[in-house]
Amino acid sequence: MKDKIIIAIDAMGGENAPNKNIEGISIFLKKNKKINDFFFNIYGDEKLIKDEFNKLNIESSKIKIFNTNSIVSDEETPLTAIKKSKNSSMWKCINSQIEDNSDISLSAGNTGVLFVISKMLLKTIEGVSKPALAGIWPTKKGTSVVLDLGANIECDENNLIDFSEMGAALFKSLFPKENPKVGLLNIGSEEIKGTESIKKAHTSLKDISKYGDFQFDGYVEGNKIFEGNSNIIVTDGFSGNIALKTAEGTAKFLTDSLKESLSENLLSKFSLLFSYFSLKKFKDKLDPRKYNGAIFLGLRGPVVKSHSGTDSVGFYHSIDLCYRIIKGDLMKQIKNNLKHINGK
Amino acid sequence: MKDKIIIAIDAMGGENAPNKNIEGISIFLKKNKKINDFFFNIYGDEKLIKDEFNKLNIESSKIKIFNTNSIVSDEETPLTAIKKSKNSSMWKCINSQIEDNSDISLSAGNTGVLFVISKMLLKTIEGVSKPALAGIWPTKKGTSVVLDLGANIECDENNLIDFSEMGAALFKSLFPKENPKVGLLNIGSEEIKGTESIKKAHTSLKDISKYGDFQFDGYVEGNKIFEGNSNIIVTDGFSGNIALKTAEGTAKFLTDSLKESLSENLLSKFSLLFSYFSLKKFKDKLDPRKYNGAIFLGLRGPVVKSHSGTDSVGFYHSIDLCYRIIKGDLMKQIKNNLKHINGK
Repeated sequence: MKDKIIIAIDAMGGENAPNKNIEGISIFLKKNKKINDFFFNIYGDEKLIKDEFNKLNIESSKIKIFNTNSIVSDEETPLTAIKKSKNSSMWKCINSQIEDNSDISLSAGNTGVLFVISKMLLKTIEGVSKPALAGIWPTKKGTSVVLDLGANIECDENNLIDFSEMGAALFKSLFPKENPKVGLLNIGSEEIKGTESIKKAHTSLKDISKYGDFQFDGYVEGNKIFEGNSNIIVTDGFSGNIALKTAEGTAKFLTDSLKESLSENLLSKFSLLFSYFSLKKFKDKLDPRKYNGAIFLGLRGPVVKSHSGTDSVGFYHSIDLCYRIIKGDLMKQIKNNLKHINGK
Repeated sequence: MKDKIIIAIDAMGGENAPNKNIEGISIFLKKNKKINDFFFNIYGDEKLIKDEFNKLNIESSKIKIFNTNSIVSDEETPLTAIKKSKNSSMWKCINSQIEDNSDISLSAGNTGVLFVISKMLLKTIEGVSKPALAGIWPTKKGTSVVLDLGANIECDENNLIDFSEMGAALFKSLFPKENPKVGLLNIGSEEIKGTESIKKAHTSLKDISKYGDFQFDGYVEGNKIFEGNSNIIVTDGFSGNIALKTAEGTAKFLTDSLKESLSENLLSKFSLLFSYFSLKKFKDKLDPRKYNGAIFLGLRGPVVKSHSGTDSVGFYHSIDLCYRIIKGDLMKQIKNNLKHINGK
């Protein structure tokens, strides 16, 4: 590993950019004052970025600003973006893994465009046919990796196997001491259930897991994702996206209903005071900002996508995710895991 | 419509059968003392069933018990069941739509076997290639119908269109005054997203909705299911099952975490007393027993599957669902909706 982890940041992507982006960086800088193994390459409007740092009273030797003069809008389509976004903060941020020695890129901008530019500039790892979008989910036992969350709506068994290997590598880079367990998302736990691709992937994963990169848990149903017994949940991008968004919708529905119940009458309002600290703990534990950041896996360099609508705390968490991924040497882990399937 | 709604009940299916099944019937009988438009054909061990009714002090002219001498176990596979379950309570309960004039069948037994026996005995409606399993979900605006929940892991555009027509018919039978709105589950709301089958179904549904059986809402993402803007959410059985189980898992994870937080210390325990009534209301509103009962749609007679593990209250709710479905003339609604697509 190099002596410094270099994180490239698109300062102009997402809602409230560059404010929340720069604030997110400043939170990271404050929390890691005593650590010197990281550096930020920041891409965007230099004047705006400097103003923001000045406002926050941040002076740091750990940042370098690269001025760019255009922004990829949310309305942009991947096709038009490729032609006209070469000077954008997003493009330069991704390209910095090629030109400016960055190890990882982070953007909160337009997902479709980010995915296409990343694929075009960084290229897919040899032997991987489709890159995938991986998310970090809270579970009863800690944290799990779920992929694909929507990059590929149709996947065959080889894609599912790649996702397993890469998901296990990601988990290992985040939690080096753990032995990752991979589960295949399915509609039943019996071996006879599921599509042909899933059944074939099941058979192959049993074999591949013998090499020791990960344990294979077999099939996992949707209701088990949050139990956290499998550290990596693998599925195609259609089902993964449905699972992700259904989980979000369910959480919103339940917390809204709870809030409504708890503020219904005087007695329950009074009780809110008493349960304030417990509810706060509950909210803190499940704060979605802590899980902000989806990782494009399968490219020759890692790219992290922050939620567009998150705030500075959420953006900070996706910076922290970038730092941990590189600290855990994700690309080496992926290379190691893929060597078994590249030989096939 | 006939002057009486005849509901066939498998008294021996599910955990704690026949106790919870008979208790469920007795709850329905008590709640509907003044109504005379229903009748139960009950299938199972006559002695056990009579004992149970005696224990509950129920004497009713609204029931008839048909003695059967075998039970389909949870371990039974559809293949073996077809050969050896002809005298089971489940088989007789389904067959009662042919032999005993029943309008609908209800069982809490083995789902796979129930599905196969139902298909074999009742046959698929002409023009429908695949029957689907529909569920009733709570939403912010009331109740929605979601299908397919797992009967068909792979579906083409014609299946999705059938599901839309039948789902709309089911919703209409439950809520006769409403004009059903159908949404297609997808991973984005733009027309270009999704699989080929989904895109083709989208184009056809826009046309078919002009006949007025339902409105078409276009694509719906997973996070919108619980908002309830679409009354019917249509998807293939794989994604539907993933959505259902992910929603269940999310709900369990959140309520467990909440419980944990609220019982952490003395102060929060104290607060539980104050918020008891609000939390009770919250729990009551979202009590899964109220939504117990999935409906097999697409057969020449309707079959309802109760959760195996539910209690008497849950079983009562699935009986009530049967009653409402027939009261709303489901089969006529389906026939009406399907006439437009059968002409194609």
